[in-house]
Amino acid sequence: MTTILFSDDADALRPSPIRRFASLINDPSVISFAGGVPNPSTFPAEALARAAGRAIREKREEALQYGPTAGFPALRERIAARLSEKGVRSETADVHLTTGSQQALDLVARVLVDPGDGVVVESPAYVGALACFRSRRARFIAATRDEERLDVDELKRRVLAVRSEGGAVRVLYTIPNFQNPSGWTLSATAREELLACAAELDLFVVEDDPYGEVHFGAAPPPPLAASDPGRVAYLGSFSKTLSAGLRTGFARAPRELLAKMELAKQAADLCSSSLDQWTLAFYFEENDYEAHLSRVRGFYAGQRDAFLEAVAAEWPAEVAVSRPDGGLFCWARLPGGEDASALLSRALEDKRVAFIPGESFFAGEGDAPRNFLRLTFAKESPDRMREGLRRLGELLRGGV
Amino acid sequence: MTTILFSDDADALRPSPIRRFASLINDPSVISFAGGVPNPSTFPAEALARAAGRAIREKREEALQYGPTAGFPALRERIAARLSEKGVRSETADVHLTTGSQQALDLVARVLVDPGDGVVVESPAYVGALACFRSRRARFIAATRDEERLDVDELKRRVLAVRSEGGAVRVLYTIPNFQNPSGWTLSATAREELLACAAELDLFVVEDDPYGEVHFGAAPPPPLAASDPGRVAYLGSFSKTLSAGLRTGFARAPRELLAKMELAKQAADLCSSSLDQWTLAFYFEENDYEAHLSRVRGFYAGQRDAFLEAVAAEWPAEVAVSRPDGGLFCWARLPGGEDASALLSRALEDKRVAFIPGESFFAGEGDAPRNFLRLTFAKESPDRMREGLRRLGELLRGGV
Repeated sequence: MTTILFSDDADALRPSPIRRFASLINDPSVISFAGGVPNPSTFPAEALARAAGRAIREKREEALQYGPTAGFPALRERIAARLSEKGVRSETADVHLTTGSQQALDLVARVLVDPGDGVVVESPAYVGALACFRSRRARFIAATRDEERLDVDELKRRVLAVRSEGGAVRVLYTIPNFQNPSGWTLSATAREELLACAAELDLFVVEDDPYGEVHFGAAPPPPLAASDPGRVAYLGSFSKTLSAGLRTGFARAPRELLAKMELAKQAADLCSSSLDQWTLAFYFEENDYEAHLSRVRGFYAGQRDAFLEAVAAEWPAEVAVSRPDGGLFCWARLPGGEDASALLSRALEDKRVAFIPGESFFAGEGDAPRNFLRLTFAKESPDRMREGLRRLGELLRGGV
Repeated sequence: MTTILFSDDADALRPSPIRRFASLINDPSVISFAGGVPNPSTFPAEALARAAGRAIREKREEALQYGPTAGFPALRERIAARLSEKGVRSETADVHLTTGSQQALDLVARVLVDPGDGVVVESPAYVGALACFRSRRARFIAATRDEERLDVDELKRRVLAVRSEGGAVRVLYTIPNFQNPSGWTLSATAREELLACAAELDLFVVEDDPYGEVHFGAAPPPPLAASDPGRVAYLGSFSKTLSAGLRTGFARAPRELLAKMELAKQAADLCSSSLDQWTLAFYFEENDYEAHLSRVRGFYAGQRDAFLEAVAAEWPAEVAVSRPDGGLFCWARLPGGEDASALLSRALEDKRVAFIPGESFFAGEGDAPRNFLRLTFAKESPDRMREGLRRLGELLRGGV
């Protein structure tokens, strides 16, 4: 047995703090608000099964063969048309497909971030993005996010401080809509502020939008990419609307950036699943996606309502809970110095209820606030949510 | 429009020299020996379509959902059993699935190679591996490969020279069976030599085996991983036997290495296509894979025979052509200082025939031999191969 010496990048890799909870999330006797995945009952299984069958039988020479690194044009064209409807004017060549939008994020990080570079992230932020930038050995510059906006003044101060010490900062990463973990959405004004700040500091913006289609009321404000398409990489996904197991995400970005990402993708995996791409292409050809989206939105809106009603009935008022207008997540703040990890231990042991402590969603090491909880309303039935929230409420009322 | 500043890794990326020929490869009026892809007529489309339908209908909560980063255990178990039959004793936990075996290579490179590290590659070598290590900014240490063996004396000399200058060299990459581009296979003795040399120099071996199942006569000698499983990452694929579009490859490696690769994969794409994995799992459950492999081997053996017969009839004897016992490729050497790129220009313009000049398969910059050709016998019918080789023969006889 040889001793394996790992690279510096490998030494920087950390296990996902969320994966630690996987066994709990999957234990059916635990009422779980911990997961981060969509509810599979919303996936149009029969329509996808038909589409997959047609893809293989009618497109065997493409659906079963290596495909273009940038993805098959039929699906890219459809995505470009939909982006154009949302105000992000796009042609087929402006959109590349990736192995989930996580890969788009990874490719962007590979081609834009050098070890030691500063990357601006939200506080709190999506852990998968933190992992991705960490794997590039980036240093994080955190900017506070709240119900409505990103604190661009704080952001500017911190970026300039890093630059004054000679550090490079080129990338800002954000989930504007129904953010993971908070459920918050940037207002139209906050988007203007953010883009003005990015332009002033010459930051390239990575706009990650996995939840934007899952809105419960009106659609969120137009994407950042609509206002400044030369400065933004817009990342999208079908994971929350059609299937998370078909690994087909996309990036809409300046072509110069897409060209570099394509080279990086050739080395990374040659191409994404051809079967997944053609299954989606046939799905879109044969089905009314808008009608499906309405059903998905209705399902999660009902879940959110049941969740928030139970919170109002069962939880003490001192616990502040976000009221998301879309997506899968709520964010709760315990009063004072209470510790969400300690609460989780008691919730699991005494009450068989799970959630994710918020600590992992903060980029800083050591100084992360410990009094936040991420809870998903995607997984459990309304009855199970009520029961789970009642049990958590007992703990919260008893004092943590 | 902002100016995009790319990372140092991005600046190191180069377009695949083979992708340049894509439009020719896909022009049906050109007789093409240029492609590097399997023949889709060998894919069991109807069986895969049935398996995909069952995967979605019967395993909706898994086939359409995010899966484990390491892959679903059902398929990993089957792969482990097959590896054990080949002499590489493996349990489920020894095998991780990846987005094609290209991703396995990329993950290995990420966790084992730092910028500037030396990586031992064969001369000639698979271009996709060169691209992958280049994206890590590795420096190449080339070791000459021939019909039978890798030149381990040269390898050792070169590795020690780099180390004597303070350079790190930790990885050796090889395709032992029916190599791309040469078609050559390492003999059993050559495998022993290689492993002894790797042990002496403490090199970790990446054994890439996409073609091993496609043997025309007896199976090739046992994998390197059978003899020294603690020193070898064995990478496998179904791309040449079942489908290249289902992006499911695998790595069998020491668990310490797999654990790091899994972390890197979480950042890279979270998980590979769940649909692809379950489609393969159901395919294996329902079908006689061995019988299918026999048909695939028979098909390519017939293609190779037609190819080599036409070469013997139509080409001057001074052109040396490899006689592969498996895989998709032949390797030809022009006599003297003749230039394969110049030959290609004339072949395309005057004869409508394509192949890949061998230059791209050599890791060195500038000093690559220019008198090699890679030709695939996977794509064209025997009649079209005969016609294409006749036309090339005219050029070769006329002098290049």
